[in-house]
Amino acid sequence: MPPTAAVTATRAAVRRLLGSAEASPSAPLGAVAVACSGGADSLALAAATTHVARRRDIAVHGLVVDHGLQEGSADVASRAAEQLEELGCDVVRVLPVEIGREGGPEAAARRARYAALDAARPAGAPVLLGHTRDDQAETVLLGLGRGSGARSIAGMRPVDLPWLRPFLDVTRDTTLAACEALGLRPWQDPHNSDAKFTRVRLRAEVLPLLEEVLQGGVASALARTAVQLREDADALDEVAADVRKRVEDGDALDAAALSAGPPAVRRRVLRGWLLDQGVREVSDAHLRAADALVGHWKGQGPHALPGGFVLRRTHGTLRVEVAVKQPPDY
Amino acid sequence: MPPTAAVTATRAAVRRLLGSAEASPSAPLGAVAVACSGGADSLALAAATTHVARRRDIAVHGLVVDHGLQEGSADVASRAAEQLEELGCDVVRVLPVEIGREGGPEAAARRARYAALDAARPAGAPVLLGHTRDDQAETVLLGLGRGSGARSIAGMRPVDLPWLRPFLDVTRDTTLAACEALGLRPWQDPHNSDAKFTRVRLRAEVLPLLEEVLQGGVASALARTAVQLREDADALDEVAADVRKRVEDGDALDAAALSAGPPAVRRRVLRGWLLDQGVREVSDAHLRAADALVGHWKGQGPHALPGGFVLRRTHGTLRVEVAVKQPPDY
Repeated sequence: MPPTAAVTATRAAVRRLLGSAEASPSAPLGAVAVACSGGADSLALAAATTHVARRRDIAVHGLVVDHGLQEGSADVASRAAEQLEELGCDVVRVLPVEIGREGGPEAAARRARYAALDAARPAGAPVLLGHTRDDQAETVLLGLGRGSGARSIAGMRPVDLPWLRPFLDVTRDTTLAACEALGLRPWQDPHNSDAKFTRVRLRAEVLPLLEEVLQGGVASALARTAVQLREDADALDEVAADVRKRVEDGDALDAAALSAGPPAVRRRVLRGWLLDQGVREVSDAHLRAADALVGHWKGQGPHALPGGFVLRRTHGTLRVEVAVKQPPDY
Repeated sequence: MPPTAAVTATRAAVRRLLGSAEASPSAPLGAVAVACSGGADSLALAAATTHVARRRDIAVHGLVVDHGLQEGSADVASRAAEQLEELGCDVVRVLPVEIGREGGPEAAARRARYAALDAARPAGAPVLLGHTRDDQAETVLLGLGRGSGARSIAGMRPVDLPWLRPFLDVTRDTTLAACEALGLRPWQDPHNSDAKFTRVRLRAEVLPLLEEVLQGGVASALARTAVQLREDADALDEVAADVRKRVEDGDALDAAALSAGPPAVRRRVLRGWLLDQGVREVSDAHLRAADALVGHWKGQGPHALPGGFVLRRTHGTLRVEVAVKQPPDY
């Protein structure tokens, strides 16, 4: 029987990304890891990856993270591991993790998961993740709610080594259909319908309403927007890096030369430079105040920055200084 | 009695924008027009504008567009005009418009409205529009649903001469409160609660749900995002204009030189150049195909463009040619 359209789509997505120069910049891939929760997205990913890898002599390591957050999580993990064996993974490992508390439960679980996967992947191998176009749409909406500019709504990257996300243009419906066609038994995470999680509410309530009001196509529009914003942000970063080379001199910045550029470029230069000068937090408000010393120079005084720093313009040059000096130690 | 916080906020917003160099690039303003529908946003705007203008000897023309779409629209317009007289506008005019059908009722009404306001404003004077932060949030969401990149989610500009939008950072609640404090009687447009309009559903259903799910601050986050994306897009346009000067030669484009830039800049250069070569529609797909001739050159053939054009690369140079020549007229 020929593979169904859903199975073909998942395989094509994996083939395309594994074949791209960005995914494997140095040598041809000898091994890849696939992260699998046992859910439909990552089971379909594991199935597509083992299929594609077999034809290219690539070893596949199936990695299952057991977050230990729910009753019976070890059982869920071992059922996922079993299916990875059946799919023909060369190595299958269950990775129990300890989850901290910093930044809320979702963020802490994510951090622990990525750290465990990174530690367990074969040396030099990428880790394939099952994020779909629907996950991407949710990420863009979450970023919109933060309001911190293009980067925060540019979503997830398909290639962000060691992470690879072949399914960013594949829908969740397709991964479900692929699992069904292949006789896989995906696990339904009860967290995925728990309305206390922001992401779940975006998925279950906000996106369907937006789809209805805007008459469809929202998830793909958000995914397209993410791609374009990411490319725009990359281009501006590249331009800013060029400008910075021309205006930086030791620990000083040539404010007069920088002022010729557009504000969005100036602020990117300032942000990177301030971080490299040891200023930890650079909020949008601080960035705009710093930029005023460049683009709206009227002889104003120094601007105080978090962490006891001040930014001062003298003779056309910006410098970060320590505001509060320690008394000398006689 | 001192003015309330809402009244002060509306006046400060008008004062700030009218005082900015962008709003009045050549001479000091002698006159401004205010567009007023009779609704709370534009009544509050007219009140704030007459207050600010009186102190600066600026004549205020109050312009009321009568769309003629609803029963009794002439009465609504004349009640708005009366209030503009009471507020002390130097000139008050009601502008009846005829609305076409192209692009749906909302787009057709908008086109007719802007054309009438532009024709009726005093020579050289800007037209103040009452769009609020809430309108901006709706515009960003509408643009997101289109998925056509940064420009479409960058929202409305505060200064886009002759249009000025002083209230893009003022909430609808503030304009309502200002009207109440000043004893103005805003008209409630029944269209504003008619769920058949996309914008109304975004306002009444989507944004409140997003506010709840993302725990507040969505409208201001969307407005902040709009500002940053607009600045990013402006910066990229500026960079692209510089690059285009270097790579354009007569009707040809130096593909090899262009290929050095980041894709987002390349595509902006290509888009502007193709439009100037007479290609009418340049979709994202066509742009990416055109860019492949620049950034992924493998000796591929010409790319067909809408309107009977082809884009061809020969000897490192791009040219737009007419694909189908008319037979000679013997």
